[in-house]
Formats: sequence, C-alpha cells, structure tokens
Amino acid sequence: MKRHLLSAGDLSRDDAELILTTAAELRELADRPIKKLPALRGRTVVNLFFEDSTRTRISFEAAAKRLSADVINFAAKGSSLSKGESLKDTALTLEAMGADAVVVRHGASGAPHRLANSGWVRSSVVNAGDGTHEHPTQALLDAFTMTRHLSGGKPTLEGRRIAIVGDVLHSRVARSNALLLHTLGAEVTLVAPPTLLPVGVDSWPVETSYDLDAVIPKADAVMMLRVQRERMHGGFFPTAREYSRRYGLDGRRMATLQDHTIVMHPGPMVRGMEITADVADSERSVIVEQVTNGVAVRMAVLYLLLGGSEPAVGGEE
Amino acid sequence: MKRHLLSAGDLSRDDAELILTTAAELRELADRPIKKLPALRGRTVVNLFFEDSTRTRISFEAAAKRLSADVINFAAKGSSLSKGESLKDTALTLEAMGADAVVVRHGASGAPHRLANSGWVRSSVVNAGDGTHEHPTQALLDAFTMTRHLSGGKPTLEGRRIAIVGDVLHSRVARSNALLLHTLGAEVTLVAPPTLLPVGVDSWPVETSYDLDAVIPKADAVMMLRVQRERMHGGFFPTAREYSRRYGLDGRRMATLQDHTIVMHPGPMVRGMEITADVADSERSVIVEQVTNGVAVRMAVLYLLLGGSEPAVGGEE
Amino acid sequence: MKRHLLSAGDLSRDDAELILTTAAELRELADRPIKKLPALRGRTVVNLFFEDSTRTRISFEAAAKRLSADVINFAAKGSSLSKGESLKDTALTLEAMGADAVVVRHGASGAPHRLANSGWVRSSVVNAGDGTHEHPTQALLDAFTMTRHLSGGKPTLEGRRIAIVGDVLHSRVARSNALLLHTLGAEVTLVAPPTLLPVGVDSWPVETSYDLDAVIPKADAVMMLRVQRERMHGGFFPTAREYSRRYGLDGRRMATLQDHTIVMHPGPMVRGMEITADVADSERSVIVEQVTNGVAVRMAVLYLLLGGSEPAVGGEE
Repeated sequence: MKRHLLSAGDLSRDDAELILTTAAELRELADRPIKKLPALRGRTVVNLFFEDSTRTRISFEAAAKRLSADVINFAAKGSSLSKGESLKDTALTLEAMGADAVVVRHGASGAPHRLANSGWVRSSVVNAGDGTHEHPTQALLDAFTMTRHLSGGKPTLEGRRIAIVGDVLHSRVARSNALLLHTLGAEVTLVAPPTLLPVGVDSWPVETSYDLDAVIPKADAVMMLRVQRERMHGGFFPTAREYSRRYGLDGRRMATLQDHTIVMHPGPMVRGMEITADVADSERSVIVEQVTNGVAVRMAVLYLLLGGSEPAVGGEE
Repeated sequence: MKRHLLSAGDLSRDDAELILTTAAELRELADRPIKKLPALRGRTVVNLFFEDSTRTRISFEAAAKRLSADVINFAAKGSSLSKGESLKDTALTLEAMGADAVVVRHGASGAPHRLANSGWVRSSVVNAGDGTHEHPTQALLDAFTMTRHLSGGKPTLEGRRIAIVGDVLHSRVARSNALLLHTLGAEVTLVAPPTLLPVGVDSWPVETSYDLDAVIPKADAVMMLRVQRERMHGGFFPTAREYSRRYGLDGRRMATLQDHTIVMHPGPMVRGMEITADVADSERSVIVEQVTNGVAVRMAVLYLLLGGSEPAVGGEE
Repeated sequence: MKRHLLSAGDLSRDDAELILTTAAELRELADRPIKKLPALRGRTVVNLFFEDSTRTRISFEAAAKRLSADVINFAAKGSSLSKGESLKDTALTLEAMGADAVVVRHGASGAPHRLANSGWVRSSVVNAGDGTHEHPTQALLDAFTMTRHLSGGKPTLEGRRIAIVGDVLHSRVARSNALLLHTLGAEVTLVAPPTLLPVGVDSWPVETSYDLDAVIPKADAVMMLRVQRERMHGGFFPTAREYSRRYGLDGRRMATLQDHTIVMHPGPMVRGMEITADVADSERSVIVEQVTNGVAVRMAVLYLLLGGSEPAVGGEE
C-alpha cells in the first residue's frame, strides 16, 4: 500500500481488499465493552480541518484513540492558512512537531495531494474530503458495509449492482465510490438529472441514468446522496419539489426493491428531501451501521498507513 | 440506578446516597499528585454541547480523563443540529461511533430526555444543563459539598436548612437543588422577588420567601444564584441596584449567619451584584471547593452509569 | 528552578542550562517511532488561551501528551473571561479542577504574572505569550536550536553573535530572546528601523543598529521577526516595500553570511516580506527544526516544573 490515502482511484484491488479485511477484524471491537487496542500507542494523528465537518472529524478521532494514538485537532477554518503558501508552512510545522499522520479536510479539490506530493512531509496524508473531488474513506466504509450485507463479508463486490442517486455533481462521495466500487468488481449506475451529473462523467467507470424507477429494482444497494440545496441556484437545477418527486426515495419506491437490497446514505440526511423518514428508519436502511463501519475502516487505514504493531484483536488488551 | 442521569428528581434517596458515597471515595484522589484511575479505560465519553459552557465541559472532561476514558468534544452550537430531527440523527451517529456516555448541554428544556427516552440510543445520557430546566450534576456537587461541611461527610442532609437565593425563575440549578436536597432530607427555602419565582413553584418541595434577612440567620447553607441580567428586561424585574440591595449577600448580611453556615455559588459569579467580593473570598465561602467536588461527583456519576471496573481508590494505579 | 515560567529574564544561567540539557535528552525522542514517555502520567495540563495561537497551542499539547499528561484545551477568546476579575475566578476554577500546570496565552502583557503571583493558584503557570511582552518558551527553543548548531549541543552561547531583525517593537519573541541569549553569554544586536524599536530598549542587554548589511556578515545566527503589518498604521512606519528592501532577508544578503551562520524565524512567516522563499527554504534555514525543538523544549519545561518521575529517555517505554 502507498504511504498516503488520497484517492479511491489510487487503491489497487489488493490494497482495497487488505483495508476491508483489516477493517473486518477491527470491526469486532465495536461490539465489545472495551473497544481499545495499543497498536498505535505513541503515534500522533493530526486532524487538520480547513472546513467544518464534525462527523468526519470525530470518526477519525474515535478511530485514532481506539488504536491508542494521540490526537491533535487543528481547526484551520477561516484562518490565513487556507492560502496556498501557508498550506506548505502548516504542513512543515505539523511534520516538524512529529505528526505521524495528517488527516486533512479542505474546501479546495486537490489540497491533500499537494500536501502529500510536494515533498513537504514524510508523514502519511489521509484525504478526509477535498472540495467536490474525493472522500476515499467514505467510499471504503460504504464498500465495507456492502460486503457485509451482499458478499458475506468477503472483500469483493463482483457483479453486484449499485445505484448512486442524486446530486452527483457536487458529491465527492459519489466520485470516490464510483472508483472504488468498480475496482471491487461492482457495476455502478449513477442516477441523476442531467444538470447534476459532472461534465467528465463519461470517463468514469459507470453507467448513468435519469430514471430512478427503472434502475433501483435491479440494484443490490441504493445509495442516496445528500442534496446540497445551497449549491443549486436558478432555473438550471430542479426545484426541491421536483427533485424530491423524481429522485427521492420514499416508501412507494422502496417497495420495488429486491428483498436483499440495502439502502445507504453518507449522512447527514435531509429527511423528506432525498429520503423519507420511513425509508431512513426502515429495516433495509444500513445508514446507522455505516457510521459504525466508518470508525472500523478509518482504524484500518490509520493502522495500515502507520504500520503499527500487530493489531491482535483476538485478545483484549 | 437508572441508565441515564436526566433529572435530580429521578434520583431515589438510595441512588443519591450511592453517588455521594462514591464521590467521597473518588474525592480523595484530588489531594494526590497522581489523580488517575483505570476504571473506565477503553470507554468513550462524548461531550455534546449545543450551548457554550466551558466550565461544565472541562469539569466533565477532567472527570472522564481521570477515569482513563477517552473524551470527544462535540460543540454543536450554532450548527444545524439544534433542530429537532437532527438531534435524533446526531444521537444515532454518536451511538454508532461507540459512545458509552453522552454528556449533553442544550438550550431547550427536555432535550436530554428526548435523547434518552426516544429509544435512539443505548448509551448513557447525562444532562449537563437543559434550558431553564435541570442541571442534576450541579445539584449533586452542591449536596456533596454540604454533606462534607454539615454532616461530617455522611450522605444525608436530614433537617438541614438551605436557603437558595436569587433568580430562581431562570435557574436550572435551583430546580435541581430543590428536588435533590428534599430527597436528602433538607428543608429548602427559596428567597427571591415574586417576579423571579417560577409559576409552578407551589408544587416544589420547598418554602418560599421574599425576605432574605429573615431567612438566612436560620440557614445552614446559603446558596446564591447567578443573576442573569440579560434575561431581565423592562420594569417587571428589579433594577440591578435594587436586586443587589434586597437579594445580594454582603458583609453586613454575612455577619448575621450562624458560625457553621457556609456560603455557596455555582459560578461564574457576578461579583458586586449577587455577592460581594469580600463574601466570595471569605472563610465561609466554599465556592472554590464546589469546583473540586464537581469533578469528583461527575467521576462518580460516569463510573456508576458506565459500570466500570472496581474504582479501587485505595491503591494508586 | 522556580515554580512558574513567566519571563526569560527570570531564568538564571543554571536554570537555562538545566532546561536546555533536559531538552537535549528529550529531543532524541523526536527521531523515534514511539515518541512517548510516562513521566507525567496522571498530571493535567490546561492550555488557557485568551488569544488564538494554533501553533503554540498544539506545540504545548504535543509536548504534554508525549509525556503522557492529560491535556484540556480552554479557548477563552472573546468570552467574558478577558476581564480582570474573571481571570481570578478562572484561575481558581482551573486550580480547583486539579490542573497541575496552566499554559496561558493572553493579549495583555503581564497576565501570566498576575495569575502566578496573586496567590490564586498553586499550580505552575507557563507564559505562552503575553501581549507584546514575553514568550519565554520561544526564546528557549531558539536558544536550544542555536546551541545545536553553534555550540556542539553544549548549553552555552558564550561569545556568539546573534542578530534579531525587524519589528522588535511589537515582538515578545525579541524581548524574551534578548534576555535569555544574554544570560547564555551571547552578544545580541537588534536591527530595526528607529520607529520599530521600543522606547526602553536602552535598558536591554543588547546593541542596536539600523543597518542590516553592516550587522549580518558578523552574525552567527540571524533571526528574522514576523512583520505585523496590521499594527503599522500611518506614515510613522516604513511601507511594506521599504521594509522589505531595508530589513528583509533575500538571497543577495544571505550570500554575505559566514558559512556556519544559520537563519531563523519564529513563524508563521510572511514570505516575500521579511524573508524570501529561497532563503526560507535554503540549507541555512533552521526554521522547520525550530518547530521540532519547540516540542522538546516545552516537554523539558513541563517536566521540570511538574517534577515528574525520571524521564529515562534511554529506555523506551
């Protein structure tokens, strides 16, 4: 595996399988009263967040602490650090303080790559979301959740059909998932209105469709994306009502799914918009489990990148 | 004991005595150079604060860390999480991440009850102050402080007379204290202008009075409440000067107290308003000790709710 | 050594040497995969920051965690705590919660001294920057860096020539360095335009000069100060262009330095203003190393103030 986790597209099938297998082992901790391992004792993980994202930050924080790493939170939002050159000096500073991994969230697509590929730092860089570009650990936790439900826990999605629905244009989650799910053998269909598909989508390893009702009866997993109304101005985009009617998942549509099909959402949900409350809380929904799996997947990523001592989940600490 | 601590009124006398006895044991740590126990190693405590309250947050943080728990701070203030449905999704998220206890501070009365009683979470919910409603750990630390000074450390306040003075209307501290002190056998008198007593006070297990000078010479403890001038608009409420003259504790009034009577305040004080500096810093004042006791009481609550391993304060770790 | 670290001027030569020697021992940890020692296990360090300063805060946080202390961050900025009396109550509260050390950053010169000398607290107070007054751990890390490069690691700067260049008037770094470097035997020259030298500079143990080109060829270390343009209003101060031309360090000037001379900067840099990028990134620059040394020096200060158990860097934990 590489030293950084920047893009889901960088992961070979072997890499992805290793992460999912390690996550499966670490996931067992979640059901124990003592959820902690000494694997990363004495290592330091810095959460460098240029954007607010409490969910992602505390998921990484919980993951690092469960491996006994020290965590330092660095909320850079609004500071002068958002400018180009300062990113370099911030990186050099964190490196010099002894950070073993820097988990970076940034509003600009590509910022984690600059951090990692500039030669500024020796520590591992983990992309925790950059602009509308990528969010690879989200894709990993989504894939991990699918393998638990659709593949008996084996790290493959060979031949599985996944529908990713909604505002693909603004979604780093969609892009990272498309890349990773393809690597794992799945057939991905993006379902969105034409104005919410990115220009370059033709080069993605996916099918596209405008017709939700045609796609979801064949899907093994339906992943609803969060609607970002604040990014949809003018007549170019569908209205809230139209969006909800054409691309929202409600009870009627849920009834057309196959028995084994799961419903996913990266959160936070806009209930009543892209997903109705009854669907979100239904037995098909694995939305809450995604959160639990997120901690396990991030533990696996930090563990593998930092090369800690044997995780030894078998015996409690 | 129940799984949550939501209201001082929920505590049976046995519950309250157990907490106070456990706190007394843990309080001994405060006088040691190494103040730490491994009792909650591997457990996670989330401080979910929808309102700023640095004092309360760091008291819970210190308590949890002293029991070797991991602590994650989640300042939700100002975020979209203050809305109803999001509270549910936030709760589900924290639960799914493996929180063993959620310490919640919220501007809306009843929010911790919704969190605990909705069936959303299995983890323990601790109310760290909800609107003008309750603040049960403050009442516990106040009661604990009284038992150390008035009952030789025994977990009872049988027959002790407590005056609670000031802005009862806006005080969750007053309400929680009234309920708990009554449970422990104390006789509580609320002293306040009529406009600063809540409408339903007749149903509280207390006496009320408008006359501070008549009440305090008989009291064993005088608890001054913080004046919240920002909530007192218009001619309805007393002016600052009048409030201070009629309901403030100064040196002259302090001279009318019995020798053993203690002076308390939950902090932060408005010196010169509800209490003068000479009273706050006098030998009768136990205000600083209340803070120390707050950490011990919160350790006891977290320890008892999370059912950690034997605290074993007797031997250092 | 005293119980507090408030001013670089308080440190005797023996004190300073002890800190530098201890830092040298702890500095070895920085090159190990596991950078942690149990020396301050069970102690609590509170970072009480009335001003934002992410760099300084995380340096102290990393230092305390590497010694296994618990860390509580208290961002008091903008709160009511900036007023005089509240500082007292804040101090009493932190003390009562069991803080062993309070690391304080405050916009008002002298605030840490008030905290330490008022009798309010028994815990150790470390000045992490107060107004334009002092920043003693910065001076210690600067001196430590110089001893590594100029004195073979021995804790002395006897006869070494140090140029401190730029906005001395607004710099707590300059003042603390002037005092400490003199104590360690160095000869310090401040280089600045007359309007950026403080009124009382005649009483400092330094030379002054307006002529950068005359001073730096003789210097063993050149320390560039950060320009604080926001504090320079009106025609009284040099323009940005003039400042840069007369007091900035660029490649041409760097070429006049002796071979062994090092270039320093406390960060964050304004590249292109007081220092050009090629100088900042040159082999003479020890700016990044200063950050690493900062953690080691702060570990040494906390360790010595709190009297932890034997650091025993020799054997890994």
